[in-house]
Amino acid sequence: MAIKTKLILFAVAALGLAHPAMAADDPLASWNDGATKEAIIAFVESVSTQGSANFVPEASRIAVFDNDGTLWAEQPAYAQLFFALDRVKALAPQHPEWTTAEPYASILKGDLKAAFAGGMKDVATVIGATHSGMSTQEFSAIVEDWLATATNPVTGKPYTQMVYQPMLELLAYMRANGFKTFIVSGGGVEFMRVFTEQVYGVPPEQVVGSSGKVSFSMVDGKPVLTKQPDISFIDDGPGKPVAINLQIGRMPIAAFGNSDGDLEMLQYTCLEPQVAFCLYVHHTDAAREWAYDRKATFGKLDKGLDAAAANGWTVVDMARDWAVIFPGE
Amino acid sequence: MAIKTKLILFAVAALGLAHPAMAADDPLASWNDGATKEAIIAFVESVSTQGSANFVPEASRIAVFDNDGTLWAEQPAYAQLFFALDRVKALAPQHPEWTTAEPYASILKGDLKAAFAGGMKDVATVIGATHSGMSTQEFSAIVEDWLATATNPVTGKPYTQMVYQPMLELLAYMRANGFKTFIVSGGGVEFMRVFTEQVYGVPPEQVVGSSGKVSFSMVDGKPVLTKQPDISFIDDGPGKPVAINLQIGRMPIAAFGNSDGDLEMLQYTCLEPQVAFCLYVHHTDAAREWAYDRKATFGKLDKGLDAAAANGWTVVDMARDWAVIFPGE
Repeated sequence: MAIKTKLILFAVAALGLAHPAMAADDPLASWNDGATKEAIIAFVESVSTQGSANFVPEASRIAVFDNDGTLWAEQPAYAQLFFALDRVKALAPQHPEWTTAEPYASILKGDLKAAFAGGMKDVATVIGATHSGMSTQEFSAIVEDWLATATNPVTGKPYTQMVYQPMLELLAYMRANGFKTFIVSGGGVEFMRVFTEQVYGVPPEQVVGSSGKVSFSMVDGKPVLTKQPDISFIDDGPGKPVAINLQIGRMPIAAFGNSDGDLEMLQYTCLEPQVAFCLYVHHTDAAREWAYDRKATFGKLDKGLDAAAANGWTVVDMARDWAVIFPGE
Repeated sequence: MAIKTKLILFAVAALGLAHPAMAADDPLASWNDGATKEAIIAFVESVSTQGSANFVPEASRIAVFDNDGTLWAEQPAYAQLFFALDRVKALAPQHPEWTTAEPYASILKGDLKAAFAGGMKDVATVIGATHSGMSTQEFSAIVEDWLATATNPVTGKPYTQMVYQPMLELLAYMRANGFKTFIVSGGGVEFMRVFTEQVYGVPPEQVVGSSGKVSFSMVDGKPVLTKQPDISFIDDGPGKPVAINLQIGRMPIAAFGNSDGDLEMLQYTCLEPQVAFCLYVHHTDAAREWAYDRKATFGKLDKGLDAAAANGWTVVDMARDWAVIFPGE
């Protein structure tokens, strides 16, 4: 791992996870007192207290977390999309044809609206072209190097510093109460694993995401996994319960999301006859972060808000419920 | 879970895993003394002893195990294939067309050679037809019921009693030394998860296998995952390192297999520049189990034997190395 990335990642981990004094007093210190915080604590205590009517054995305490917009910021666009755009610029000298071929030509001119006029098809093309042609190890190294220097175009902060301090505390609090925490995100699984263990304390085998095809071959007597341009699975919307069933193989009892892409995961978790907890992060804080919901391009929360109201799921009002947004504030 | 299955599964688990007195003396009591047992112990001690030159931190102690032929018997054919054949017979009354349509007609007549003359294509057809059209929960219940009464056509024993006692001890021994044990098998992931936790002590989220398409829908306000007839991933051969990369996201440091279908998994684990251990179970005991290798229909071990010799991998000679084959003998 590149030294610079390591330093940034460890600094973030230290900011986010290592406040022993604070943790001893209040494991959710960055959450303001109120109904949201009370609901979280009531659920965690009820399933983890021996003798409680809602007690759940530790092996079944599975919690699933979306990443973009739930654990880290997703505005003005997904971090992984900025990574792909930066890769197009970095690779352009090797692809003279990109000066005229779309969507590359528009990306290189900085006209993202034209570049992605075709919608998800164009996004998939760019993701495929920039996330393939190298070994899985080489790809990880490229992401590490990028994370070490890339910054969010609005805040100027490194992406790994735009994780939500209250959610870092929530992850740690749930693990301290016997939960196994998984990330189940639309982001690329190999992209996320570069930072999820150090930033969130979630090990690689507990990260579920979208993926591209990978092929195995022996080259000069050495095994090589090579990333291919075809996308093989989109871990979003109905794909989330499908991936949970395939890769985790247990029904979660807690699910955390922030967009309509998380709706099916929350339905799967909370509309079964079981003790379960579902929470939506609602981005309501234009001053400290962003405010968006029903009409957002990235992280649209429309059907999900209605489903939360209808089903009594907990909704975080970021402006009201979070005393701190990002670590170190 | 059906009560009968539970009883059988618990009985097997008790036989296989719960010999505290024996474990205190020798955690690998069913392994005869000799080079194979010594090689296993030397590896496990070298990576788990603080200060050892080969010490590996606990989080990186990932061990992957094939299932068919490595953890349980696979002769005269895979258990899951017998399950599919039994399902064809059980479902035949609902499918009058099967009396003439192949491969079903031949299966119902008991002519398996004719049924599977087309090879894997016919097998996939039968697996697809018998493993789809129900919810994932319904499928688990069907497998449980089947395991409770089905028996191996040669031995007459329940399949879950045809697990290898030495491998149960090896799984427990590695976990006791900080390894996280995963199953990475060509078997269907939803088929295996019905018994893997109770029989092997491997939880659902550590079972990687082949899978069919699954679709999510809301039916009468309830979430349902429905199994579809299309096979989506074959976790065999080069698929094994691909699945390990996708679902575990770490390089294993120990890999256990018994056939050419495990070769790429062993290459991936042991031909990288890292401390690692690879082992093939060689079926050499026609008296107590089966003897087969280079020409077997199920569990062919040909290229793998050559690779083991060339690379110095450990090869279990079942007749020589295993004092006991099945639990309770």
